[in-house]
Amino acid sequence: MQLYIGNQNYSSWSLRGWLIFAQHDLKIEVIKLPLFKPEFYRTLEKITPTAKVPTLVDKQVEDEDVVVWDSLAILEYINEQYLEGSAWPTDPRQKAKARAIACEMHSGFTALRNEMPMNCRATRHVELSQNALNDIARIDQMWSQQMNDYPDEWLFGEWSIVDAMYAPIALRFQTYQIPLSDLARQYQQKVITSPAIQRWLYEASLESDIVEEDEAGEAI
Amino acid sequence: MQLYIGNQNYSSWSLRGWLIFAQHDLKIEVIKLPLFKPEFYRTLEKITPTAKVPTLVDKQVEDEDVVVWDSLAILEYINEQYLEGSAWPTDPRQKAKARAIACEMHSGFTALRNEMPMNCRATRHVELSQNALNDIARIDQMWSQQMNDYPDEWLFGEWSIVDAMYAPIALRFQTYQIPLSDLARQYQQKVITSPAIQRWLYEASLESDIVEEDEAGEAI
Repeated sequence: MQLYIGNQNYSSWSLRGWLIFAQHDLKIEVIKLPLFKPEFYRTLEKITPTAKVPTLVDKQVEDEDVVVWDSLAILEYINEQYLEGSAWPTDPRQKAKARAIACEMHSGFTALRNEMPMNCRATRHVELSQNALNDIARIDQMWSQQMNDYPDEWLFGEWSIVDAMYAPIALRFQTYQIPLSDLARQYQQKVITSPAIQRWLYEASLESDIVEEDEAGEAI
Repeated sequence: MQLYIGNQNYSSWSLRGWLIFAQHDLKIEVIKLPLFKPEFYRTLEKITPTAKVPTLVDKQVEDEDVVVWDSLAILEYINEQYLEGSAWPTDPRQKAKARAIACEMHSGFTALRNEMPMNCRATRHVELSQNALNDIARIDQMWSQQMNDYPDEWLFGEWSIVDAMYAPIALRFQTYQIPLSDLARQYQQKVITSPAIQRWLYEASLESDIVEEDEAGEAI
């Protein structure tokens, strides 16, 4: 299998797709493309209709490649094909809740995403809109509630697709020094100190490209 | 089970969640709330963390309700709990593709969604941005490709979650009189003339509330 990703310093959706492979030690060939450069579009336009990352190409299936060009679809696909469904909670009620929370991230938190782009190497101060502050409050509430149910664990106990969806948020809260309640901070630290995220941060630290579109706020 | 939805004339996400029940003749109590009115928030805030529609409450499970507050999560939940997975294509390759296409709708097409809000009863002309035109071109390409593979059928042959995701787009293309290629038009007509959508349109036609936020373009 091959996973096409963007710059690890900046590409939060790439991180979400990549994380399930790292977390489960699944073999994957990572192909990193420089975000928004001609090479990026040239390569992706040949294999996907949208030229976005992450994109998964699974060559293990006979006669035709499986191509998946959305992070949540990649996570669902890997979960079903290679993890026997173990990347969602087993209990249907918890699974439904986990899916709703994962979908909230997939379609929402637009203000937070626009105003606080992922930028692993930076420490910044940024003036936030009320919408972004509302996004942060909702995530703080969600993380706190889950940490209350599963102290010191992942959002639903065992690591799940939800944790992949929110990992870039933990990194953004660090970059932009966002104050969090104690339980939410506990989860943020669990994410950031996990070996998979540490590996991602290490690989990101080897990059030197600056993507202007994703540079926000003032250095502090 | 109860499904909370917004005004049927305007609420495209409600339609997506509702459609799987109508399409499969699953019993559901529909609770319609007036979009963006105090009653809307008052009711939803008691049962969900986000106060959005659609929201599903499944009381068939013992001791605690299952609450699902996102359209895609609702579709996945109903598919798994009540339809034995039949609302996705069976073939893993097609399922992966269908999920990627469904996820494209769930997280994207922002320009199209902003500039062409669903408004079932209206016929309008609207000036579109290049981004919205690109969104339309991508959807036309996607529908045409699938109709090429499955002439006169749903996007993946049998009706699937993808068709729920794109149904409001078929209605928007009608409202805003968007020119489509022949195969895409064929799919649009299949969606609009289906009994489930006809039932939705009938129920929407009984409404008289105007939601100013969702009124766009000039009457033609």
